[in-house]
Formats: sequence, C-alpha cells, structure tokens
Amino acid sequence: MVASAFLPELWTEILIPVCAVVGIVFSLFQWFIVSRVRVSADQGPSSSSSGGSNNGKNGYGDYLIEEEEGVNEQSVVAKCAEIQTAISEGATSFLFTEYRYVGVFMVIFAAIIFVFLGSVEGFSTENKPCTYDETKTCKPALATAAFSTVAFILGAVTSVLSGFLGMKIATYANARTTLEARKGVGKAFIVAFRSGAVMGFLLAASGLLVLYVTINVFKIYYGEDWEGLFEAITGYGLGGSSMALFGRVGGGIYTKAADVGADLVGKIERNIPEDDPRNPAVIADNVGDNVGDIAGMGSDLFGSYAEASCAALVVASISSFGINHDFTAMCYPLLISSMGILVCLITTLFATDFFEIKAVKEIEPALKNQLIISTVIMTVGIAIVSYVGLPSSFTIFNFGAQKVVKNWQLFLCVCVGLWAGLIIGFVTEYYTSNAYSPVQDVADSCRTGAATNVIFGLALGYKSVIIPIFAIAVSIFVSFSFAAMYGVAVAALGMLSTIATGLAIDAYGPISDNAGGIAEMAGMSHRIRERTDALDAAGNTTAAIGKGFAIGSAALVSLALFGAFVSRAGVHTVDVLTPKVIIGLLVGAMLPYWFSAMTMKSVGSAALKMVEEVRRQFNTIPGLMEGTAKPDYATCVKISTDASIKEMIPPGCLVMLTPLIVGFFFGVETLSGVLAGSLVSGVQIAISASNTGGAWDNAKKYIEAGVSEHAKSLGPKGSEPHKAAVIGDTIGDPLKDTSGPSLNILIKLMAVESLVFAPFFATHGGILFKYL
Amino acid sequence: MVASAFLPELWTEILIPVCAVVGIVFSLFQWFIVSRVRVSADQGPSSSSSGGSNNGKNGYGDYLIEEEEGVNEQSVVAKCAEIQTAISEGATSFLFTEYRYVGVFMVIFAAIIFVFLGSVEGFSTENKPCTYDETKTCKPALATAAFSTVAFILGAVTSVLSGFLGMKIATYANARTTLEARKGVGKAFIVAFRSGAVMGFLLAASGLLVLYVTINVFKIYYGEDWEGLFEAITGYGLGGSSMALFGRVGGGIYTKAADVGADLVGKIERNIPEDDPRNPAVIADNVGDNVGDIAGMGSDLFGSYAEASCAALVVASISSFGINHDFTAMCYPLLISSMGILVCLITTLFATDFFEIKAVKEIEPALKNQLIISTVIMTVGIAIVSYVGLPSSFTIFNFGAQKVVKNWQLFLCVCVGLWAGLIIGFVTEYYTSNAYSPVQDVADSCRTGAATNVIFGLALGYKSVIIPIFAIAVSIFVSFSFAAMYGVAVAALGMLSTIATGLAIDAYGPISDNAGGIAEMAGMSHRIRERTDALDAAGNTTAAIGKGFAIGSAALVSLALFGAFVSRAGVHTVDVLTPKVIIGLLVGAMLPYWFSAMTMKSVGSAALKMVEEVRRQFNTIPGLMEGTAKPDYATCVKISTDASIKEMIPPGCLVMLTPLIVGFFFGVETLSGVLAGSLVSGVQIAISASNTGGAWDNAKKYIEAGVSEHAKSLGPKGSEPHKAAVIGDTIGDPLKDTSGPSLNILIKLMAVESLVFAPFFATHGGILFKYL
Repeated sequence: MVASAFLPELWTEILIPVCAVVGIVFSLFQWFIVSRVRVSADQGPSSSSSGGSNNGKNGYGDYLIEEEEGVNEQSVVAKCAEIQTAISEGATSFLFTEYRYVGVFMVIFAAIIFVFLGSVEGFSTENKPCTYDETKTCKPALATAAFSTVAFILGAVTSVLSGFLGMKIATYANARTTLEARKGVGKAFIVAFRSGAVMGFLLAASGLLVLYVTINVFKIYYGEDWEGLFEAITGYGLGGSSMALFGRVGGGIYTKAADVGADLVGKIERNIPEDDPRNPAVIADNVGDNVGDIAGMGSDLFGSYAEASCAALVVASISSFGINHDFTAMCYPLLISSMGILVCLITTLFATDFFEIKAVKEIEPALKNQLIISTVIMTVGIAIVSYVGLPSSFTIFNFGAQKVVKNWQLFLCVCVGLWAGLIIGFVTEYYTSNAYSPVQDVADSCRTGAATNVIFGLALGYKSVIIPIFAIAVSIFVSFSFAAMYGVAVAALGMLSTIATGLAIDAYGPISDNAGGIAEMAGMSHRIRERTDALDAAGNTTAAIGKGFAIGSAALVSLALFGAFVSRAGVHTVDVLTPKVIIGLLVGAMLPYWFSAMTMKSVGSAALKMVEEVRRQFNTIPGLMEGTAKPDYATCVKISTDASIKEMIPPGCLVMLTPLIVGFFFGVETLSGVLAGSLVSGVQIAISASNTGGAWDNAKKYIEAGVSEHAKSLGPKGSEPHKAAVIGDTIGDPLKDTSGPSLNILIKLMAVESLVFAPFFATHGGILFKYL
Repeated sequence: MVASAFLPELWTEILIPVCAVVGIVFSLFQWFIVSRVRVSADQGPSSSSSGGSNNGKNGYGDYLIEEEEGVNEQSVVAKCAEIQTAISEGATSFLFTEYRYVGVFMVIFAAIIFVFLGSVEGFSTENKPCTYDETKTCKPALATAAFSTVAFILGAVTSVLSGFLGMKIATYANARTTLEARKGVGKAFIVAFRSGAVMGFLLAASGLLVLYVTINVFKIYYGEDWEGLFEAITGYGLGGSSMALFGRVGGGIYTKAADVGADLVGKIERNIPEDDPRNPAVIADNVGDNVGDIAGMGSDLFGSYAEASCAALVVASISSFGINHDFTAMCYPLLISSMGILVCLITTLFATDFFEIKAVKEIEPALKNQLIISTVIMTVGIAIVSYVGLPSSFTIFNFGAQKVVKNWQLFLCVCVGLWAGLIIGFVTEYYTSNAYSPVQDVADSCRTGAATNVIFGLALGYKSVIIPIFAIAVSIFVSFSFAAMYGVAVAALGMLSTIATGLAIDAYGPISDNAGGIAEMAGMSHRIRERTDALDAAGNTTAAIGKGFAIGSAALVSLALFGAFVSRAGVHTVDVLTPKVIIGLLVGAMLPYWFSAMTMKSVGSAALKMVEEVRRQFNTIPGLMEGTAKPDYATCVKISTDASIKEMIPPGCLVMLTPLIVGFFFGVETLSGVLAGSLVSGVQIAISASNTGGAWDNAKKYIEAGVSEHAKSLGPKGSEPHKAAVIGDTIGDPLKDTSGPSLNILIKLMAVESLVFAPFFATHGGILFKYL
C-alpha cells in the first residue's frame, strides 16, 4: 500500500476554490482600477473627475502632466469614446454571429459524442466491469456518454465566456490607454497591462473553478468509479478546444483580411498612415485585433489549460492516485494551477506596484521580467505543491504496467516544462525582436528588395525552430522517462502554470495596438502616437513569446493526450514499422500543410475582396482622401465577418472530422500514426510561421523607428527598403496570426478528440481493415 | 524448399549487361545525331555542312526554312560557339573545383567507414557466424568494412561521372538547339530532347552496369556469403548519394545565387531582359543551369536509383532468394531496371521518330506523352520480368520473421510505385503549369501586389502536397502489406524504372533554357527567342514533374532503407510511445527546417554579393548599359563558385554527421525516430517548396506570354502585376532549385548512411544512455 499525500483531502477541497476565487477577485479589482479612467464625454476627461484617491502610479486622479494643444478637450475624449464604442460593437456583433454558427455545430457535435459513446455498449444502462481493473464494477458507457457530452458543453461555454469577456475588457481598455498616454508612457502602460491582467486572471481562475466544480458534481453520480469520472471529464478539454479552433480560425481570418486589405490599399497604394480614419477598413482592422488576438488567443490558451489538466487527470485516475482514491494527489494538476494563480498575482504586483515605468526603453524589460519572476517564484511553488500534495512514492500507469515514481521526480517533470517555456520564450524574443541581429539582417536584406526580404524571413523562421524543438525534446525525454505520460501532462501544466501572467502580457499587445489606432483616428498629436507605438512594439515581441508558449505547451499537451488515447484504446505499441502506422504518420504530417493552405488562401481571398471594396470607396466617395467625407466602415466590417464565417468551416471540418474518419474507417493504429505525424510536423510549421511573421513585422518597425545608424540608412518610411519591408510584413500577417497559431489547436484538438472517442474506436473502429 | 525463378542464372548474367550496353549504345547514337549540328564557325553554319543524309525530322542537313536577316551569317554562329565555350568552360571549372573539395571529404569519409565498420569486431580477420542465420559462417566484419569502402568510392565516382557527363552533353547541346531554332521549333525541340536522352540513358545504363559488375567482382571474394556481399554493396548507394548531396547543394546555391543576383539588378532595377549580354551575371546564370539543374539532378536521381537497388538487394539477401542462392530472383531489382532501359528506348522513339513536333502547342503534350507511354509499356515489362524472374512463391524477411509472398504480389508492388509516380507527375503538372487554374489564380493575385502573390503561392504549394502524399501512402500501404520492406524498395524501383525517360525530359528543360540565353546573347531575332521561350516554358513544367518523381521515389527509397537499417541494427519495433523514439521523431522532423534555413540563407547571402558586384559593374564600367563595353563575367562566376563551395559545407555536415552523432551517442532507437521524423516532414516541405517555386515561375511566364484575355489584363512586361510576379519568381528560385530538391537527398542519405553504419551502431552505439 502506497502512502497518501501530506495535505488532507478537506484542505484540498477548500484550497483549490479559494485560490480560484482569489484570482477572480484580483481580476475584478484590476478592472475596477482601469474603470476609473473615464471616457464618457459628458463627465469630462479623467483629470477633473477623480475622487479622493490620488495614487500617481495607477494612472488616475492626477492632472495631465504634459498639456498639449487640444488634447484635453471634451471633443477628443468624445471622439475616443465614439471610436471605442464602434470597435466594441463591431467585435460584439461579430462574436455573436460567430457563436451562432459555432453553436449549431456544437449541438450537432454534442449529439455525435452522445450517440457514438453511447453505442459502445449498445446504449446499455447496466453497470459493467472496469476497463483497466476488471475485478471492479464501473458505471455504464451510456453514463460516460451523457457526462462527456455535458462536460463538452461546459468546456465550450467556458471557452466562449473566456474569449468574450477578454474581448469586452480589451475594448473597454483601449480608449482608456489612449487617454492615459496623454499623461506619459508609464500611465498608458499600466492601464494596458492591468487590463491584460484582468483577462489573464479571469481566464485562469474561471477555467480552474469550472473544472473543479464539474469534477465534484460528477463525483456525486460516479462515487468510487474514478476511472469513468475522469474519462467523462475529458469532454471538458474537447469542448474548450473545439471552440478555440473556431475562435482562432474565424478570428484569425477576420483580423488578417481586414489588416492585409487595409494595408494593401492604404499604406502601399494611397500612402496614408496605418490606422488613418480615412481608410474604410480601419474599424474592421481594429475589431479584428480584438476578435482574433484577444478572443481567439483566450480560447486557445484556455483550451490548452483544460486539455493538459484532463490529460493528467485521466492518466492519474488509472494510476495509484485513482486506484487508492487519494483525492489530494489526484488533484495535483489543479493544485499546480491554484499555486500558479497566487504566483502570478505576486508577479503582477512587480509591474503594477513595486516598480514604475518612466521611459520607453523600460517597457520591454518590464514585460520580460514578468516572465522571469513568475518562473522563478513558480519553481518554489511547484516544490511546495509537490511536497504537500503528493505521497513520497506512488505508481503511474505506463501503457499497461504501473511505474513507481517519487514526488521529487514529478517536481522535476513540472519544472522542466516550466523552464522549457521560458527558454522558448527567450528564443522567440531573440528571433523576433529588432534589438537582435536576426531581425536586423532581415531588415538589411530589404536593400535588395522584397524578394530577398522574403527569402531571409523564411530562413529565419526555419532556423528559429531549432532550439525550441530541442527544449521540447528535452522536456519530453525527462518527463516521459520519469513518469510516462503523466509526466508529460504535468510538464505541459508546468509550462501553462504561469498562464495568468502569460496572458496578461499577451493581451497587453492588442490593447496597445488598438490604443494607437484610436489615437490616430481621434486625431491626437504625434507625441501620443509615438508613445502608443512604443507600447505596441513591445507588444509585438510579447505576442510572439505568447505564441511560442502556446505552441510549446500544445506539443506537450497533445503528446500527453495521445498517450492517454493510446492507453484507453488498448493499443500497446505504435510501431512505425507497420504499414498502418507509417501511412498514418505520413498523412498526419501532411495535415498541417492542408490546413495552412486553407487558412492562408482564405485570408488571401478575403483580403482581395477587402482591397476591392476599399479601392471602390476611395474611387467613388468624393472627399474621402481629403478627409471631408466619412468612409463606409460598416461594409468593410461586413466583408470581414462574412468571409471569416464562411471560410472557417472547411478547416474546422478538416480538423474535427479527420480523427472520426480515420478512427472509424482505418482504426486506432492508423489514427495513432496520424496524431504523431501531425504533432511532429505541425509544431515546426507553427513555430516557423509565427516567428517569420513576427520578424517581418519588427523588421518593418525597425526601419520605421530608425533608431540606429543602420536603421536610418534603410529608412525613412516610403523608401524602397521600407516598401520591401511592408510587403514582408503583409505576407507575415496570415502566417503569424492565422495559420501559425491555429496549428497548435489542430494538433491538440485531434488528440483530445481521439481520446474522447477512444472507447468508440476501440469497439467499432477500423471497419475498412475488418472487411479487407 | 521454394521453387526458383523461371529464367536460368546464365541468362540473367547475360541479359543485364546486354541491356546496359544497349542503353549506352543508344545514348551514343543520340549524341552522334546531335553532334551533326555544327557550331564551329570556320566550317560555316549547319545548312552548308551536312553530308548525304537528309532526314528532315532529325534537324540536320536541311536548309533553313525561314531565312532571317543576319541569322545565317558566320558571325552569329561564331558568337554562339563562343558563348557555348564560355558556359562549358565555366561549368567545367566549377565542377572541378567542387570535386576537389568534395574529394577531400570523400577520402575522409571513406576512412571513417573503414575504421567504424572495421571496429565492429575489433578488426578481426576471422570468419564469424552470420548475423541472421547463426548456423552458417560469414566473412569477417573487416572484409565488409573494406568492401563497403570500395563500394562507397565506386558509387561516388559513378555519381561524379553521371553529373559531369550530363553537364558536358548539356553544354554541347545548348548552342546547337539555338541554331536549330532558326529552322523552326520542331527542330530545336528534337535537338534538346535528344541531348536529354543522351544523359538519361547514359546515367541509367552506367548506374546499372557499374552496380552489376561490382556485385560480380565482390562475389569472387564473398562466394556463398550473400549476406555479407550485399551488406557491402550498400556502400554504393551511400557513395552515390553523398556526392549527390554536394552536387545538389553546391550546384543549387551556385545557380540560384547567379540567377537571383542577375534578376534583381537586371530585370528589376535596370529593366533589361533576361539573359541580356550586358548583365555581368549572365554567364554565371547559364553556367548555373548546367551545374545545378543538370549535374546536380543527374547525381540526385542516380543516387535514388542506386539506393533503391541496394535497399532491395540487402533485404533480398536475407530472404529466400538469398538463403536459396537464387541468383535470378536476387537480381530482380536489376532486371526491372534493365527492362526499364528497353522500355524507355521504345518510348524515346515516339518523340524522335514516330511523331513530329510542328507547333509550339504540341511540345508539352509530347513530353507528357513520354511519361504516359513509358508507364503503360513498363507495366507490361514488369509483368514479364515478374513472371520469368521470380519463383511463383517465395519468402521475404519481415523484421525477424519470413513472410510468404507470391510473384503477382511483387508485380503489384512495382506497379503501384510506377503508377504513383505518374499520378505525382500529373498533380505536379496541374499545380505548376499555367494552363490550369491554380497558377492562373496565383497570377491573378499579382493584381494586388507581391504580398498576395506570395500568400497565394505558399498556399498553392501547401495544397499541392495532399494528393502526392496520398499516392505515396497508398503505395507504401500496398507494397508494405504485400512484401514488407522489400515491397517498398521495389515500389521505389518501379517509380524509378522509367528514369531514362524521366531524365531525358528533365534535362531537356535546362538545355532549352540555355538555348534561349545563347539566342539572346548572340543577338538573334525576337522570333528565335520566342521559340526557345516556348521550349523553356514546357521545360519548367517537366522540371517540376521531375522533382515530383525525385521526391516521391526518395520517400519510398528512404523508407525501404530505414526498414533495412532497423533489421540490420536488430531493432524489432520502433515504438513512438517510448521517450527515445518520440524525441528522435520530433528532432528528425525539425532537421529539414534547419537544412532549409541554411540553404535559403546561403542563396540569399550569395545573391546579395552578386547584386553588389553587378551594380558595381553597371556603375563603374562606362558604356556597359549602352552595349559598347563588355562586362566582367569572370568575377561573377568567381562569386558564385566561392559562395557555393563555402556554403555547401555546413548543410553537408548537418546531413552527414547527424546519423553518426545520433547513432553513436543516443543509439539506434533514437536514430530510427530521427529517420522517420525527417522522412515524414521532409517530403512535405520538399514537395511544397518545389511546387510553390514552379508555380511562381510559370505565373510570371503566364503574364509575360499574355496568351489569354485574362493574362493580357495582367501584363504586359513591366506592369505592376508583372513586377509582383517577378518578385514571386525570385523568391521561388531557392525554394524550387536549392532547398526543395536537396531535401530529398537529406532524407535518403541519412537513411542509407544509417544502414551502412548499422553494424557499428548495433555494437558501439548509444553510449550516452549506457552511462546514464
């Protein structure tokens, strides 16, 4: 008999929801502070509306430190409020349209889950012997079907809420950031950062809370049958991830169709600045940032978090934790996440309260320090959780056998994931920030035109894959060797444990981007625009870092899910040297290409339509270029909406149907091959696409900013090298914001879907080979 | 006891060399016909020099059918001869330099092979029990080390000769094609096609002959020990393939540095036509076509052929063929190739003698028909060989067990490879020819600039992967299921059985390209240039088809080699769900990206140097733009030479050292993962890179040719859409001619190297895990 964890079950039952609630309260508190920046025109600007509080660092209640002509006027504030409302309404309307379509899909898919899983035992309501321990009795497959369906819907709804609330917060914060930029870059930074934190904490905490409550409610029915309980819980991961797919793909197409369309006519043909209010696609572009980069990314990371937790739980349920009903040890993944919320809370204070940003050059280090601080503190946090939450020795299910694992080994598994995340983050920064030579080389290649820029950019993306892949490989090797698939799952959780901080700095980017757009559209001065640009440039790098984290964790998560699937489907080896597996591997490795082809082409086609509309408006609306007539923003919003709704369906179907078709017709071995193939191939394309796009974006910004002698020799805006850089940036848009980030959902989603349907495939799968 | 093959051993011993000699004689005959087109100025143009023969179809001896002002003059012929000499000398000089460097590498690597393989049994000269059948006695490991080294050198030398002779023939034929273009497009076509055939038959026949002679000579020592004999023969594949790597990479960098450099300044900045003699990089560009597309491709396909044969032979040697010493059945792979030579010979006559090309629009169908005809006839040929060359039932080694196989099953294995090749060829044509909508869509996207062109082009490349991967997957499934790894190896041989025809239409492309260059440089009329352009456009598509074949066969070959390696290394399963294999898979899938990053960056950097030199010459040589002064071609040739020699070393080392490092430090399981990963990932990148590049090239040509209303609306040359198309074409150059085609060598070479070193790894490999 193995010893149980140090922490009593009752404490676990209390600690997890408490941490989740702390996270939510902290998030609401941040939101309250942000809300004190007023944008309503009738009450006047913030400088005259504050109450007694006068905390200079928090950006409210103090007088504007630099008065500029006109900026303090009622009209500017009113204009900002108006633009914010337009963006917010556009985003809300798009998300509602998107959710309506996705809702239909979700209902159909929920029915499929219920029917397929129910059919495993012919919809019998009798209890049955358990899958892994046939001496015990488990609940019927029909119950698992029903509860999986419920969990699926809960996951989908939580994902929708995460994305939607994130968008709401972002559109609430963007004009406030613009207005605060009048007082200095530090004030603006803190508003944007706090708003990011609202989203980060809300998402991390609510994801944890819903999962925790679901487990406890399901437990009322399942009782001692933990195997069935946690099998049903995997539906939560599937729900979260399938919503994320549509969010990422739909949002990604929306944002890039608008962005590419706006840039192609505005910047290249008409030579007007980015976010110029004369550009008819400008509102669509800003809406896109919120529905793609905020709502899409929120759903994506929520999905990763839910899946990693589910993968760990399902493996734990058939290990000694589950067999001995050690609830605290069983909840180890949730305890890690709970600790993560507390650690991120402390980390946030370093940016908002312990230090103050005074100059532009302090922004990027402040954001980078967030990552370092959270990683260092979290290492201690993991040690504590591993010490109190785990028995000193226990066994983990390892493809048929039980493997003895020590608590310090599991500590190392989580740590290796956490630190691999940091390494991936820094490598991504090195390859995408214009402070280092790779991006500067790409910028330099613009001298000889767009072609060399593209060649160098693609080469940079390919090269940037090397170290992250080694980091992921080492994490897998260590965690797999120590604790089999459970080790890989907790390594993924380790990488995601600082998700609240990761999301905060990630969401900060699009908020700053929007703030800049509002400043431009509201006609605010050049100095304000410079400040928001500085915030935005730092945000570009953190966005790339966030994508690095998302991809790295996706690789670990999908491997863990893959392992859980293989265990559940009763496959003992996935031998590359069998025809069924090798063809699966080959076809699986092709899927990311097929998927990327669809999404890139979608962005391209939608952008072409947008270009035609923008050109049409410039040509037919008199006075548009002179600024005397208003463009028709709504038509452009509609083009983006229609295109993204229409175009998200084929790639969505490809991802959702592949596991079903392969599992049903070709069986679990081929499906295993497909999962492994898409994992090892998708990770590479995702990393290289994100980094190539990020590098092109920052190469362009490097030339525009003209900070060094070298940069000046390439500029200024409008020079031939700059034009070449703009072409690279435009090509990078779909790579870094549509194809690349969607690919990590592809690999995760196919794995979690296979896991959920594993009982079905194990019973009814592979019909083609059965009759051949 | 299993029955032996129908065909007596003596007949086999006679038939194989006879077919090889027939191929060589046919090749010399074609060369003789081409040589009758005279380019020596002192003897006057061809129209006055012919003897009695007056075969109108063969393009010599008849008067010029369309006299044009000046074209028939001595001076033009002299000019053509002069340019041809310059190109030939440049190419010869580069290849000699390349071979000098590669020679050093080969000597070192030969020493490594000898020492590593010799060390397996501590350089013992005693006979030992056989690996697979321990009741028998085999030759010592030291003998295998020595003979493997010899085979390696023979393979390398044959590869060098294939590449070098191909280049010689191509540079001999290019001016002749130009001169014949004066008489009409049909005449020019036939000269270019015949010259391609010279190369195709010479390569296919000499590869077969050298291999056959080597086997027979080695057999004198090995006697009854066929296991050792064919293990040593694998060195032949390794030698051929390692030369091919340097040929492809070095040649690829050379040709694209010159091409990109020439285009960036000439076409984009100075607005002078392609191949204009005023462009200082023009000779380097034309030399590049010969060293990259001809010599590189010759070595590449020779490598594939040699490796596929070796993989089949080594598996056969431990199957019933080898155990029963059934020499005819053992030589089945060589019989397939012998039959292939005869089939291709007949196929060639369809293009040169049975039909005649009279108009431009007949060129592409004529080339395509070559593929169809050869495939159809070869299907019959395979049936004959399978009937007479194989016992009706036999056993094949299948990872430890013997599997019973029927002769009709093996016939199907070869056929499935052959027909999969044809499908890949047609899909490639569909995605890269401007007669179909994919390329036309890409051309259309040029309306909105270079960015959308690149986005659509990348999407096209990704999409073009789908069907070829399914075709390869089906071939693998069928052949693997029927006859394990032997089936896969003969499927690869099936795809390569029509190599002589494949190479003929492949080599035809660069010859036509060069012919156009010579016409431009010699100042020949616009009409002649139009004819050579038409030849060249058809050549672009066949080049893409050739690359499709090369990649498809590489996938099958490397899987077969991989299987042979696993058998030899004593690994029984390559289970994805073990830490050692999964990290290998992940890192292996990353290698093609690393490799592409290196080669793309190399082309980019070399092109930048070329651009600077070309700009310098235009700026400093007075009268260059006006055509009154001659540019300094030699410096440009030197830049390309130096760059390619220097830049081919790092990617070469990556490929050659990875199997050694992984096998030695991490062991055979991880190495298996690396091989599988690089195979499934590399195939995709290779196909998409080749097709993206081909599509951009033909999209540009589509706009330039302006044949349809749609094309006219995008043109003419110099319009904004055309400029965007030129940018795409330039980006595609390194993708389609450097990175893409080199990747299939990467996957093959790592596999064959692992196979050759398998005894060493099995004995001394994995030292890192032994001590951990």
